[in-house]
Amino acid sequence: MPDPNPPHIHGPGCGHHHSDTTGGVAVRLPDDSTNPILIQVTRGGLVESIHRGRAVVVGADGHVLASFGDVKAITFPRSANKALQALPLVETGAADAFGLGSEELALACSSHDGEPMHTSRVAAWLSRIGLTPDHLECGSHAPYSVPTWEAMLRRGEEPTTLHNNCSGKHAGMVTTALHRREAIRGYVNYQHRVQQRILGVMEQVTAQDLTGAPWGIDGCSIPTIGLPLEALAFGMARLADPQDLPSARADAAQRLLAAWGAHPELVSGTEGFDTLFMQTLSSRILSKAGAEGVSVGILPDEGIAIAVKIDDGAKRAAGPAMAAVLRRLGMLSDADWTALQPLVNPALRNRAGVKVGAVEAGF
Amino acid sequence: MPDPNPPHIHGPGCGHHHSDTTGGVAVRLPDDSTNPILIQVTRGGLVESIHRGRAVVVGADGHVLASFGDVKAITFPRSANKALQALPLVETGAADAFGLGSEELALACSSHDGEPMHTSRVAAWLSRIGLTPDHLECGSHAPYSVPTWEAMLRRGEEPTTLHNNCSGKHAGMVTTALHRREAIRGYVNYQHRVQQRILGVMEQVTAQDLTGAPWGIDGCSIPTIGLPLEALAFGMARLADPQDLPSARADAAQRLLAAWGAHPELVSGTEGFDTLFMQTLSSRILSKAGAEGVSVGILPDEGIAIAVKIDDGAKRAAGPAMAAVLRRLGMLSDADWTALQPLVNPALRNRAGVKVGAVEAGF
Repeated sequence: MPDPNPPHIHGPGCGHHHSDTTGGVAVRLPDDSTNPILIQVTRGGLVESIHRGRAVVVGADGHVLASFGDVKAITFPRSANKALQALPLVETGAADAFGLGSEELALACSSHDGEPMHTSRVAAWLSRIGLTPDHLECGSHAPYSVPTWEAMLRRGEEPTTLHNNCSGKHAGMVTTALHRREAIRGYVNYQHRVQQRILGVMEQVTAQDLTGAPWGIDGCSIPTIGLPLEALAFGMARLADPQDLPSARADAAQRLLAAWGAHPELVSGTEGFDTLFMQTLSSRILSKAGAEGVSVGILPDEGIAIAVKIDDGAKRAAGPAMAAVLRRLGMLSDADWTALQPLVNPALRNRAGVKVGAVEAGF
Repeated sequence: MPDPNPPHIHGPGCGHHHSDTTGGVAVRLPDDSTNPILIQVTRGGLVESIHRGRAVVVGADGHVLASFGDVKAITFPRSANKALQALPLVETGAADAFGLGSEELALACSSHDGEPMHTSRVAAWLSRIGLTPDHLECGSHAPYSVPTWEAMLRRGEEPTTLHNNCSGKHAGMVTTALHRREAIRGYVNYQHRVQQRILGVMEQVTAQDLTGAPWGIDGCSIPTIGLPLEALAFGMARLADPQDLPSARADAAQRLLAAWGAHPELVSGTEGFDTLFMQTLSSRILSKAGAEGVSVGILPDEGIAIAVKIDDGAKRAAGPAMAAVLRRLGMLSDADWTALQPLVNPALRNRAGVKVGAVEAGF
């Protein structure tokens, strides 16, 4: 199957902007002072901390249904756009060529907690395609699942690349490279075909010219491409209602979203926000967190998506803010909102288990 | 020795405000929108996240040398005021009655990482006064020191109250209660003499009427009393230059600050910000973090202190913001600033160890 959207190849000398990834002179986000308080953290009747941020709800036709703060500011989506990054895995035919099922597709979109249900499936996937965990260039870190890590330490085990929360995404990338007979080594680099293909897909789906976009290196070593927050939401909405996408891409989007919703436990983990959020809503809303306070939600039946970025990068605020905005717009019923309370308005408890405060919507 | 500042006793029916600690109707911090960006987090040449906050530098005479943002807003000092909370341990004569040395006094002011150097000293202290870790009402949590926790898990050990980062402070509280022949059980409660005595000390040293102040329950179950950020800095400055305090209190302040500076490794831990900050500066500035983005610094030779509160509660921003403000005011030399760079302007590295961004001063 031909690559439905041959990407531009960026490299030294191509004339495009290539970010200095060592910090350099930082560009201030525009208008950050206007972003509203989305979440407040209370203790003893006082607001102890606040989280400002931006949020935007967009339809697949590009209509902005609601926006809070400066939603045109450039944002690194981090792991919130993994479903976009997984499109080539399906639309190149790689997934079918290697017989991947919906569990693998869900893992390709995941930031998992490194529990056995995640690592065993990624290990089996790699084995099936004739590769090993050493082919993944994401690096290793202790699993986010604390019980899993504790059990590993008790057994004297060290974390591997399988435990990296991005190992499913990376398995998808090496699967695509293998299928397209591209070099596996170096697949995380900006210039590699795997990343250039993803860049092209993101350009098309989000309708942005990203050839000169600022980019950074993500925690798992792949590029993260800066784009306006509202473009991220628009791209996610088009996954939900992909009728204007090329047919192979539309099919891939439908399969990825079906997998995402069918296996919420694979998308984060037993105690993960995204997993619990989707399980509570029977996957009527799909959600995905990214580092530094990014969160996206997709309403597949409505063709609508939301993207949130917390100014300060707080993980604790991103998911609750996403839910609070949807609630404010009437997109979560009373029953849904009640069921979500432990997740989106969690009590803060001290070491003795006493409720001492709460995380709550700031509006 | 008589209690140099007999506290008010607050209780049900005393007419004072007692906060609802279950969340209740939250009071918005005044003027939070005016707080400046103190720290920015960069990636790939973009500012990815920002941390707004408040900071104030005050002399022991109450003169405000510099302030950023709304420094009159009520702030829970959390663990940043442990030296104030430790004053009764010394001034009641409890420390001398039980032969405590400067290591124990440093631990009374600490939020330690639960390394063996911390837990063994608290255990020995409790044993010396005839109590056990079970008398501490702070609760248990895994030690903040990851290598310590990993080693414990490999040995199959569970955390105890000794590993709670506040165990030194709690050891000081039970020591005071024992010396004053007060009930040990319940010493964490707002109405207990131990906490009322601390409230009285805080009122006197910070020159605030705290009888109606909002209060919350801290992570270790004791009350944390809300006060203006500038009053927290003022109280800390008076510890550095205690000539206007009652003599027993002034002596206690001098002993606690001497202990704090003599044992930086006991105040947080091998990898802790406060420990490394003080070691780098040979304790010419004493520093102490509190939860939710609070930080204080004391310049003992100058009789000056700084208090910082990050709006969003980010730990990563509090210490660097404190240092950046002192640098801006010329209170850190070029040599100091250079030596502190790895700590106050740390590189952000990904899982592969590649520098992908930085935490840096926002001004």
